[in-house]
Amino acid sequence: MNFEDDIIRFKKNIDDELKQVYDLGPDIIKNPINHILKGGKRIRPVLCLMTSLSCGANIKETLDAAISIELLHNFTLIHDDIMDNDDLRHGHITIHKKWNSSIAILSGDAMLAIALIKLNNLKKHKSIIIKKFNEALIEVCEGQALDLDFQDKNIISEKMYLEMIDKKTAYMIGLSAEIGSILADVDKNVQKKIREYGLLIGRAFQIQDDLLEIISNKNQMGKSLKSDFLLNKKTYLSINAHLIDTEEMNKYVHIANRNFEKGFNLYRKFLSDNNIIDETKNLIRRILVSAENILEDIDINKDYLYRYTQLILNREN
Amino acid sequence: MNFEDDIIRFKKNIDDELKQVYDLGPDIIKNPINHILKGGKRIRPVLCLMTSLSCGANIKETLDAAISIELLHNFTLIHDDIMDNDDLRHGHITIHKKWNSSIAILSGDAMLAIALIKLNNLKKHKSIIIKKFNEALIEVCEGQALDLDFQDKNIISEKMYLEMIDKKTAYMIGLSAEIGSILADVDKNVQKKIREYGLLIGRAFQIQDDLLEIISNKNQMGKSLKSDFLLNKKTYLSINAHLIDTEEMNKYVHIANRNFEKGFNLYRKFLSDNNIIDETKNLIRRILVSAENILEDIDINKDYLYRYTQLILNREN
Repeated sequence: MNFEDDIIRFKKNIDDELKQVYDLGPDIIKNPINHILKGGKRIRPVLCLMTSLSCGANIKETLDAAISIELLHNFTLIHDDIMDNDDLRHGHITIHKKWNSSIAILSGDAMLAIALIKLNNLKKHKSIIIKKFNEALIEVCEGQALDLDFQDKNIISEKMYLEMIDKKTAYMIGLSAEIGSILADVDKNVQKKIREYGLLIGRAFQIQDDLLEIISNKNQMGKSLKSDFLLNKKTYLSINAHLIDTEEMNKYVHIANRNFEKGFNLYRKFLSDNNIIDETKNLIRRILVSAENILEDIDINKDYLYRYTQLILNREN
Repeated sequence: MNFEDDIIRFKKNIDDELKQVYDLGPDIIKNPINHILKGGKRIRPVLCLMTSLSCGANIKETLDAAISIELLHNFTLIHDDIMDNDDLRHGHITIHKKWNSSIAILSGDAMLAIALIKLNNLKKHKSIIIKKFNEALIEVCEGQALDLDFQDKNIISEKMYLEMIDKKTAYMIGLSAEIGSILADVDKNVQKKIREYGLLIGRAFQIQDDLLEIISNKNQMGKSLKSDFLLNKKTYLSINAHLIDTEEMNKYVHIANRNFEKGFNLYRKFLSDNNIIDETKNLIRRILVSAENILEDIDINKDYLYRYTQLILNREN
């Protein structure tokens, strides 16, 4: 086993499956579905395959579940991009911009349908995985609901913010890890730990995303950063900035509405001056240490999971 | 057993369940979900309960499945109303008008998630019902995709139109009937016939809907009729009108864009002068006769299903 080679192999397996996941059906949704599926980092399905392998399973059996997870993720991306009026995703123009909102709504719906159908191909543990998958789906919707709701509020506590991202992002990443372990037939206690590990990875991943929006740039991220700031979307950094000086923050958003670069740079400087960027980096590190600690006393091949944690920590997009 | 009493009882059971189907969760989606669930004719879940009862099952066992079906239907309504920019549904203002499109997209997504979670409560035949439910979901999406696609075309053949409504509407109504029979443990051949019966009921129901848009009025229908005509949405009547004189039809839509009543009345007159209204009524009757014929040689208590067929035929909204 070699980590880098296996990651490449996992991604290739996933991409190959996704290429043919919806090749019939009306062009009006088939084309947008295949458009968005071309891109993406495959964080979730790779983690699913990786936990499966680390727990000693044959990844062939896990691939259908991993594909369903990636499809569910893409369903949420399509709909979120409409809600946020984003124009860039995975470095490509978003579906609602390239086509229109109706086609995007419907392509998202169909994407979810395909994810669900794919799960019916599972040979093992189908019933429990479907149940968990559906529960994750409502969590993701509720997380997105809180995200929308928070846009109209200035002060969001760290606790509220974490509840939101745990639902919106971390829950599904936790499930990705858990499904890999379920399909490897490890015992329930190990499955639970692996899920908790995945949840923390997901939490760190989302906060990392928040951070990269500030220290990365549009081209690296492959998505537009503008809308989140202008929509007053809550990130780990923005809630802390609001907690320090909400009037100042509102001023930056106001300025950014007329001159985005100017307002956004003032915000960046505020984050830096108030040590929020460094604190965020520290938090991410601490969460990832907790994630690794969870793995400590379970008896699986943990090497890949530790490597994966580092991958999350060091990602630049 | 008394048909009228049982229909009332079915609807009450369904309404009671729907009232409490999503009473936790963030207000931002809980309120819209409960708003749309207040209304509706409950055609699909009633049919599901009715086939179950006709096949000798205890309807208690069927209720969870029936509720899932109604939730799936409402998910499609919420998203379709955004796509068609409709302002009225079940006699109430649509979600995207009362709140906004983002909330409507997300409420629809959550509605589907709740439908799927509900299916996990099934005690019997869960796996096969979930499989069939997911297959129906992609059919509904593809039907809606064809519906969108046809809006940009003038000439749609009857065959293409029937394929579209079979996917968009009839497939799910067929499944509603089938699930009732599956949960009653009748044999596969009977399940198949019940499904075919339901599919034809669904086809007749959709064409009836098309017809009622012309001969009914907005208040009776509980939804706005304007958008369908202006969007050049295909109905059984409009495709036939286009087949007779597509230029004339385009003229009416053009007029309706400036003066809706004037254009729509010209269209009505055209349908009447060309005998399209009577032909449509005849077709609905013929389809319903075929539906009843399918039931002929199966050994269940068919009385309710015959009564249900008449209910569809005679509905005014």
